[in-house]
Amino acid sequence: MRVSEAELAEIPGIVRVENTPAPEVFRIAEREAKESYSSKEIYHDFCTLHAYIDCPPQVVFDYLADIRSLEEFTVSARELEPVDDDGLWVGWDRIVPDTRLYAKVVANRDALTVDYHCAWDQGDELWMVYLYRVVPARTVLGTQGSVLLWTNCHHPHYDVNPRPELAPSKDRLWVGDFWHLFYPGHKIELDNLKAILEYRHANGISIVDSQRQARG
Amino acid sequence: MRVSEAELAEIPGIVRVENTPAPEVFRIAEREAKESYSSKEIYHDFCTLHAYIDCPPQVVFDYLADIRSLEEFTVSARELEPVDDDGLWVGWDRIVPDTRLYAKVVANRDALTVDYHCAWDQGDELWMVYLYRVVPARTVLGTQGSVLLWTNCHHPHYDVNPRPELAPSKDRLWVGDFWHLFYPGHKIELDNLKAILEYRHANGISIVDSQRQARG
Repeated sequence: MRVSEAELAEIPGIVRVENTPAPEVFRIAEREAKESYSSKEIYHDFCTLHAYIDCPPQVVFDYLADIRSLEEFTVSARELEPVDDDGLWVGWDRIVPDTRLYAKVVANRDALTVDYHCAWDQGDELWMVYLYRVVPARTVLGTQGSVLLWTNCHHPHYDVNPRPELAPSKDRLWVGDFWHLFYPGHKIELDNLKAILEYRHANGISIVDSQRQARG
Repeated sequence: MRVSEAELAEIPGIVRVENTPAPEVFRIAEREAKESYSSKEIYHDFCTLHAYIDCPPQVVFDYLADIRSLEEFTVSARELEPVDDDGLWVGWDRIVPDTRLYAKVVANRDALTVDYHCAWDQGDELWMVYLYRVVPARTVLGTQGSVLLWTNCHHPHYDVNPRPELAPSKDRLWVGDFWHLFYPGHKIELDNLKAILEYRHANGISIVDSQRQARG
């Protein structure tokens, strides 16, 4: 132990076998376990989706790390083009009319994390962040392929558009107006992603061509 | 676009604005959105917890990357000692009697990921994997501090102990016997972790001492 039990005991609310015997810990967990959870409990503050994908982890990473993959697996991100040499791209989000989507990839090949930092209407503050992590299924499920974790966090800008003057029209829906649909909406895109990767992997079709792969 | 619409259309089940206009996508998402989800739907295959922690991301990372922190924030992992020079440690899991816990940290400082690869009874196959990712709250919530993501995956060994002969007794509970309690059980530990980090950070108490930090 790094610190004494007395020091830990000064921190209010800590539950450990030293102050809560194992049978009591089980009783607390049984009491707190619920049969069901409301959509708001599960998906209001953070929205995480998980999938098993029968495709090697490095390939899933390469696919996600190429920003053009968004044009394939998302419902509505289209016509992405580089804005500058810093990795910022701009395209359209076709889920609503006339809306520019700015996006940048931040990826770590060793950790197999790929994040899309995005925003509607402007590219100065990329506050819509899509966090992905690819995990070798061999490690966590004992089988080939990948586990994909996908999390979005409920940034306050979802509730209030910080730059309403940049919207293409006054009646354009704001992306946060459908935060409550992020789980089912992202599920559609996760199913797309899984279908594309598994189809190409099973059929020996190039998943990310070499030119794109070099960019990843 | 990297591939043609025709090529994408060959993959069954893909939903994109080209084949499903935006209003129809919203109808599908509204139809699929549920008021509530059963515990099994949410936590059977994967169990993810999220927390906001008012403590800087690098500090949260340093704390998690030191395996001895398990002795503080977990309910029952205790008396960890190094087994070898490869980073394998062994201690006791006090949630059940006489049970050795083997554990190794795999961390990536750039990506702020910290994983504990663990097992009961033996250290040859570390199949119980605790996946953590620290995310700067500035990036995803527009505020100071950290978001912590914590995922466990339902490895088949939770359902069947692969090495029952190593159990200290025939009636010792198996860790997978309480997979259904992982969410409330890990919530206790996440609350501990948040309480420890926020208490020390707010009070200027060293969170990981320098000797331990060097090991992280």
